Amino acid sequence: MIPWAKPHYWGREVELVNKALDSTWISGGSYVEALEDYFVENFDKKHALATSNGTTAIHLAFLGAGIEPGDEIILPGFCFLAAANIALHMGAVPVFCEVDENTWCMDVGDLEKKITNKTKAVIPVHTYGNVCDMDALMDLAQANDLIVIEDCAESLFSKYREKYSGEFGLISTFSFQATKTITTGEGGMVITNDDRIAERMRLFRSHGMNREKVVYWHELPGHNFRLTNIQAALGVAQLENRSQIIENRHRVYDLYKEKLGKIAGVQLQKINTNVDVLIWAIAVKLDVDQFVDTRDGIMTRMKNMGIETRPGFYASCMLNIYSAHKLPICEKVSSTIISLPSFPTLAEEQINFICDSLESLHS
Amino acid sequence: MIPWAKPHYWGREVELVNKALDSTWISGGSYVEALEDYFVENFDKKHALATSNGTTAIHLAFLGAGIEPGDEIILPGFCFLAAANIALHMGAVPVFCEVDENTWCMDVGDLEKKITNKTKAVIPVHTYGNVCDMDALMDLAQANDLIVIEDCAESLFSKYREKYSGEFGLISTFSFQATKTITTGEGGMVITNDDRIAERMRLFRSHGMNREKVVYWHELPGHNFRLTNIQAALGVAQLENRSQIIENRHRVYDLYKEKLGKIAGVQLQKINTNVDVLIWAIAVKLDVDQFVDTRDGIMTRMKNMGIETRPGFYASCMLNIYSAHKLPICEKVSSTIISLPSFPTLAEEQINFICDSLESLHS
Repeated sequence: MIPWAKPHYWGREVELVNKALDSTWISGGSYVEALEDYFVENFDKKHALATSNGTTAIHLAFLGAGIEPGDEIILPGFCFLAAANIALHMGAVPVFCEVDENTWCMDVGDLEKKITNKTKAVIPVHTYGNVCDMDALMDLAQANDLIVIEDCAESLFSKYREKYSGEFGLISTFSFQATKTITTGEGGMVITNDDRIAERMRLFRSHGMNREKVVYWHELPGHNFRLTNIQAALGVAQLENRSQIIENRHRVYDLYKEKLGKIAGVQLQKINTNVDVLIWAIAVKLDVDQFVDTRDGIMTRMKNMGIETRPGFYASCMLNIYSAHKLPICEKVSSTIISLPSFPTLAEEQINFICDSLESLHS
Repeated sequence: MIPWAKPHYWGREVELVNKALDSTWISGGSYVEALEDYFVENFDKKHALATSNGTTAIHLAFLGAGIEPGDEIILPGFCFLAAANIALHMGAVPVFCEVDENTWCMDVGDLEKKITNKTKAVIPVHTYGNVCDMDALMDLAQANDLIVIEDCAESLFSKYREKYSGEFGLISTFSFQATKTITTGEGGMVITNDDRIAERMRLFRSHGMNREKVVYWHELPGHNFRLTNIQAALGVAQLENRSQIIENRHRVYDLYKEKLGKIAGVQLQKINTNVDVLIWAIAVKLDVDQFVDTRDGIMTRMKNMGIETRPGFYASCMLNIYSAHKLPICEKVSSTIISLPSFPTLAEEQINFICDSLESLHS
């Protein structure tokens, strides 16, 4: 079976985890700081806070931004819906807008229509690594006095106009989950330039306490979103070999592009103008009329051929947990997408086998 | 400097972490299952769910119990206030009751006075390892139809009437933070006998998704409270040597008891009737009239002698983040307690030095 994702150690992963263990600094520690320093040094933001995962990173960003019950938060109706779920946890109202049917990123025209006087924030989710149309989005947010929180869980190292995704928002979040470009098993990061927000997030991350000042004094009702030093060590080792990881992700993407381009009825995600993409998940929209089966049927057949695939995210309007109006494009995109194994150590023969298998299901 | 706490590897910690790394199952995996199995096998509960830390364990328990905005939740005004903070995150109302001035656990008589028709749950927090008066508490909860959620972050392996703390509540939570009896760096556990609550918590722990059924289908607005396989491996190794850990914690406690018993103006935590205690933190109430300085002054002087100590938790009524009425006993306990280094590898000479140092500050 070719798995959909597969973590790989590129260098000192095992060595640094063992160093973290040897130090007995197994909760906080110097690798957490090193991981945060990498983001401060490489992204145009003053503050970086490591978190236990990408979802707690979003929760921390929302707390830092002061999202309150009743606030409306606009996000795409087609994406991994972590930000929508965190909005519900905070008593805020997720409002969903359409995506572009080719880029699968927020449709800024439709976003504009969703703005009300209760809108507090907009969450561009850079799905599969593609970056939203940030020029239009930032202009619109500024004109309407909206906070922008970028969800870069899937877009680490993708660029828009020479700037990394995550360098645009007031606050931006990343994920280091096991399938991600850089992994710490589970982990995340929040970055911002705002000193006050950074300080609030630092408190919310660890019980609302500033231990340097007083132990057990809760300045605000904090949570625990801390990343361990052991996990951070893994991430630091991965970042040491980021060039190799990026190069191999490009290699895999280029091979797929060449092969998939020759298959009728298969359309790759269109990359937005001005984007220098680092794809996290290679996904295609299927014209099922040209195939022997439905999208889900194709996935089952691929599985039987030894290939693990994933469907597109369910559109918000297809799920029962949101009171969401119909979003026809999101729904269409959702039901026709299939994402293929995309990890950076995929061999050319594996990619050929995957593409040939897909092609063999042509009607 | 003698630290307040110090993690120690008793056996296969490094080996099992490396096995987890080698497996490349760095997010979920077999060690997470083994850690959960240990709790199912050793505690009188059918379900155990590992979490990213003790605070997310409490959050998961509250979500599982269906705590809703406006619900009142009663907890002690003197304890580590994670449960109170999670209540605030969920829009619930933390209501604080007094503690007993000698056991520092919930005063069940005062608890009864705090019950209203909005009270949904009561949270016995087993502070420092002492177990609350569970007979009286469970009777009261049953008579008033209240959910009991035990916070056992500090009381793993302490027993009440031959049963472990955590075996009484509808849901119970544990912590494996770096200073705890069993550690995974950061980590936690939730146990329950209730099938429906367990299933809800399983969903809330991981995005509301049941991957076995459908990927990306959010059945409810889940969070991410998952523990990694790497951290779980550490915990599994610690549990293999639990007898040694427990034995050494008893050794340290017994040595302290003997030495501290001879110092006037120093009162150890009184252990509740029917409790077979495993102390997490050795704490004493100081009669400051018999010492050369205030409690905080004593702590500073101890630090200058090379001994790290911690103050008692701030009482809820001393903090600005809760709209809490005065709790004179909690406040008094809070301001007179000092907790001493309590880790299981403390040598007898270190304990003697700590006690002699404290005694030298007698007036």
